[in-house]
Amino acid sequence: MQIAFVIYPGFTILDVIGPFQTLADNPGNEAVLVAAEAGPVVDHTGRAQLVAEKSLFEVTAPDVIVVAGGKTGELDQRIVDWVRKVHPTTTWTTSVCTGAIYLAAAGVLDGLDATTHWAWADKLNEMGAHYVHDRVVPRGKVVTAAGVSSGIDMGLTLMDRMYGPVAAQTAQLGIEYDPQPPYDAGSPTKAPADIVEFLKAMMGPDSEWAKPPAASPA
Amino acid sequence: MQIAFVIYPGFTILDVIGPFQTLADNPGNEAVLVAAEAGPVVDHTGRAQLVAEKSLFEVTAPDVIVVAGGKTGELDQRIVDWVRKVHPTTTWTTSVCTGAIYLAAAGVLDGLDATTHWAWADKLNEMGAHYVHDRVVPRGKVVTAAGVSSGIDMGLTLMDRMYGPVAAQTAQLGIEYDPQPPYDAGSPTKAPADIVEFLKAMMGPDSEWAKPPAASPA
Repeated sequence: MQIAFVIYPGFTILDVIGPFQTLADNPGNEAVLVAAEAGPVVDHTGRAQLVAEKSLFEVTAPDVIVVAGGKTGELDQRIVDWVRKVHPTTTWTTSVCTGAIYLAAAGVLDGLDATTHWAWADKLNEMGAHYVHDRVVPRGKVVTAAGVSSGIDMGLTLMDRMYGPVAAQTAQLGIEYDPQPPYDAGSPTKAPADIVEFLKAMMGPDSEWAKPPAASPA
Repeated sequence: MQIAFVIYPGFTILDVIGPFQTLADNPGNEAVLVAAEAGPVVDHTGRAQLVAEKSLFEVTAPDVIVVAGGKTGELDQRIVDWVRKVHPTTTWTTSVCTGAIYLAAAGVLDGLDATTHWAWADKLNEMGAHYVHDRVVPRGKVVTAAGVSSGIDMGLTLMDRMYGPVAAQTAQLGIEYDPQPPYDAGSPTKAPADIVEFLKAMMGPDSEWAKPPAASPA
């Protein structure tokens, strides 16, 4: 089971590492980090670099794809084209956070229930999907997850569907995932309204934040 | 506020990326990934490489240290020595998962309440700490977190103590941390007993798993 985790300059690193940790420990899974070009890829904070082991062009028939979110205010057409090309033969096509914007751009979410980071809900609808405010939204073989940390829940959901409840629970206990956040503010329906408004303006689709970093010179 | 995230060959990548994501997005924080040697560091799955921006020797007075867990069956003495050296002047000295084994080896946890991955509780006690089965254990400036995913809760706890509740809730909503695991199996007190035993044997301190990868040739 080859699982390709798709990253790009400006990606959010927890988007990819959440599902990576739940899926890559399983001996039957071959996890591979991919980007348009192989090599170190800088995350949205600018402070972390994760190495893409292979370029997209070296991974032509993955069983599972997991597209990370991040600065998706402008998209890399090479990723859009690749998603469109590999999707018909995947077993699972998935995204975390604004990785759903890539799936939508590739036509994968046309008319489909899907989720993304809460601040990007309107954008997802504009692109032809039907935004659902759920944490993990499985629709056939397409599974989208909400913002950033939701990728952990999605990874466990995939483990459950791939290998059953014992495997999913083993993965959960292995990462001691018994969450106890100090506040109950992880959803726009629960957080103080001023924090919701601040973040929506700060990191939504029309923000400066959403613009990916300029490409490095060739 | 310089926050040094300590990694090494065989580290668990979610251990570091959980707190990284909650802390590095704050403009007042300068996150830096460090290892005994700068450059790409391979995680415990062997499938992810995270780049250490600086060597430990370049980071001499961090305000905060976050030591990741992983294959800590044998320790890198350079990290132990560094923790011992920088700890007296940190504002916060922290660990996730078996990163606590490094803190214990450096003497930071002598006689102190602390936590680690549940499968390593006895080991932590043998090293002079007093294991507590809590998710995040703050004792003065020393904060230890339980296994892997607990680093997210620790990161939010640190945000709360550093900058207050609005900052912590903003970080939480930014990563949409409203956890909904498909099972309630993230603690050894809740998971089926056979899964607990399997994992303890598979990844505990006496397992083959716990041995770090051989050092690459110089």
